[in-house]
Amino acid sequence: MGNTIKTIDCRLFRVPLPEVMNDAKHGDHTHFELVTTTIKLEDGSEGTGYTYTGGKGGHAIKAMVEFDLAPALIGKDGSDIEGLYDFMEWHIHYVGRGGIASFAISTIDIALWDIRCKRAGQPLWKMAGGSSNTCKAYCGGIDLQFPIGKLLKNMEGYLNKGFNAVKIKIGRENLNEDLERIKAVREFIGPDITFMVDANYSMTVEKAIAAIEGFRPYDITWFEEPIIPDNYKGYAEIVDRTGFPLAMGENLHTIHEFEYAFEQSKLSYIQPDASNCGGVTGWLKAAQMADKHGIPACSHGMQELHVSLVSAQPNAGWLEVHSFPIDEYTLRPLVVENHRAVAPDTPGVGVTFNWEKLEPYLQ
Amino acid sequence: MGNTIKTIDCRLFRVPLPEVMNDAKHGDHTHFELVTTTIKLEDGSEGTGYTYTGGKGGHAIKAMVEFDLAPALIGKDGSDIEGLYDFMEWHIHYVGRGGIASFAISTIDIALWDIRCKRAGQPLWKMAGGSSNTCKAYCGGIDLQFPIGKLLKNMEGYLNKGFNAVKIKIGRENLNEDLERIKAVREFIGPDITFMVDANYSMTVEKAIAAIEGFRPYDITWFEEPIIPDNYKGYAEIVDRTGFPLAMGENLHTIHEFEYAFEQSKLSYIQPDASNCGGVTGWLKAAQMADKHGIPACSHGMQELHVSLVSAQPNAGWLEVHSFPIDEYTLRPLVVENHRAVAPDTPGVGVTFNWEKLEPYLQ
Ligand SMILES: [Mg+2]
Ligand SMILES: [Mg+2]
Repeated sequence: MGNTIKTIDCRLFRVPLPEVMNDAKHGDHTHFELVTTTIKLEDGSEGTGYTYTGGKGGHAIKAMVEFDLAPALIGKDGSDIEGLYDFMEWHIHYVGRGGIASFAISTIDIALWDIRCKRAGQPLWKMAGGSSNTCKAYCGGIDLQFPIGKLLKNMEGYLNKGFNAVKIKIGRENLNEDLERIKAVREFIGPDITFMVDANYSMTVEKAIAAIEGFRPYDITWFEEPIIPDNYKGYAEIVDRTGFPLAMGENLHTIHEFEYAFEQSKLSYIQPDASNCGGVTGWLKAAQMADKHGIPACSHGMQELHVSLVSAQPNAGWLEVHSFPIDEYTLRPLVVENHRAVAPDTPGVGVTFNWEKLEPYLQ
Repeated sequence: MGNTIKTIDCRLFRVPLPEVMNDAKHGDHTHFELVTTTIKLEDGSEGTGYTYTGGKGGHAIKAMVEFDLAPALIGKDGSDIEGLYDFMEWHIHYVGRGGIASFAISTIDIALWDIRCKRAGQPLWKMAGGSSNTCKAYCGGIDLQFPIGKLLKNMEGYLNKGFNAVKIKIGRENLNEDLERIKAVREFIGPDITFMVDANYSMTVEKAIAAIEGFRPYDITWFEEPIIPDNYKGYAEIVDRTGFPLAMGENLHTIHEFEYAFEQSKLSYIQPDASNCGGVTGWLKAAQMADKHGIPACSHGMQELHVSLVSAQPNAGWLEVHSFPIDEYTLRPLVVENHRAVAPDTPGVGVTFNWEKLEPYLQ
């Protein structure tokens, strides 16, 4: 009975961003929310999972963990992660399926994986596939409203930190402004730096195709979320008409949504996010499905954890290094060597929070 | 500025059921949750919207209304319901899209429609299409574990109340038990009563087809949710192989999900639920899309409100009269005349809660 779940402690932090960030569809970000869940088993083993939001939904996630999931999980076998994952999906199915439910399940699932890895004395990258402990990484700006000077300064910062790949937001009303920004960045970073763009589904199919024709000269590795994620066939239409590589995944919250994307969208890259698609268990399902479709498994946000997941896959793609300053609140800022992100070697998921520093933001 | 939203008051009630109810996938129901939202505009006009759950998710819905939606809606024009609907969808898009978000939006949207109808001095059925003020109605049991004697007693109760159509749950482990129950009900109700079955997506495609072959002799009007709602193409496969009429909709939470169903599932009936697909605005979108596809718009649950929505449509289908005892907590129990449900004629959405009776269940 040592495996029995004894306590589940969920906390919500609302952490201010150092400056206002914005993209085409979510408006201004002034804070991010961090929902942490610490689980203890009867034998004393303990793990912490978490999820983030861009500033909304944190209270709902915490409420679902506290009122709907935790009471049903206490007393169950905490080592049966896959069984609990399935249980949670059905437990909140009627009000759930995607959305808040996927975030709530993620924070719990990651805690259970933390316990599993600690008990095995293994780092997550070994437990989640073990292919490698490093992966390609790029920095993603949330910079749609940055003037060009500031945008380039931001790119310079990324390169100075040792990265050789960058992504910017596009999706301004006026397509020419997007193209101007893309041209400026490519000229600034030179031909050897990998460069992606992300429209946060602000475009129509037609506008996306026009954008692609405009930025073809600038060697763009992928075009991320040109259109709403729900329009799976629209993605395929863009690919059919341009042959351009597309990426998405940060807004796919169930394995079914990933399945639609793989079957209908003709993607070149998939970007699941363990904080919103069901934790480590959900992320691995998506990555394995990607492998079957011959698609590289990338990630969205949460680089401090995804570095272990992406590195571990045979079909490892690119790790996104997100702009939220999570590194200030954990004990191991992301390590970059030879332009590659390096997974932590400590047993567990490798993310330990600086609780003292988070304390002032507790809700 | 009389239209400006002044206050939004959200309340959660956890209401005990008179007896334990169960279906194939959600287990035992001992309570239902009612989340009410009362909105006041600057000019003093007031409306109340609401959503339900089967006992889980209510706290998360309330948290989303209170922390994410209400603060962003105060001060906005409460008469621009369609604009606010769109705003809400994008406001919580990253953590939302379906699930809890759709429930939270529903409770607010219904309150705004209540205000719109009251100000116009019109009942909802007139404002929502106006085709008629009555519709076909059937009683849906949550009766999977009822022994046959009790099951038939329950059916008798429905017929005594003036209904001429009934639905039972199926989806027991052993298909023969389902068939036995179906046979017993058909023999009991006789040939003239309309009869549907609902498996709450507990079956595989193969089991669903076997079930259909088993219950063909019993004149079943539709087979509801034989398989998981996410498997849109699985529904079409069942139709292709059996030609049997299928229904679903209670688990579709966004207009995109309805679109997939209409395009891929070969449904004969659609059953949107205004409490979980975005309120009156979301329900009407789904019903209008159904009309384009030549499919009758039915409903799931919330009969006290859906009676107005279904009746109002040119493609009106069947109103489900759900087993949750909501009629005990409102001032106008559902009216049935000549086997048809009758929409209220009072200005507003026509659902007024008995707050005093709900008080003991306030969370
Ligand atoms: Mg993105
Ligand atoms: Mg049903």
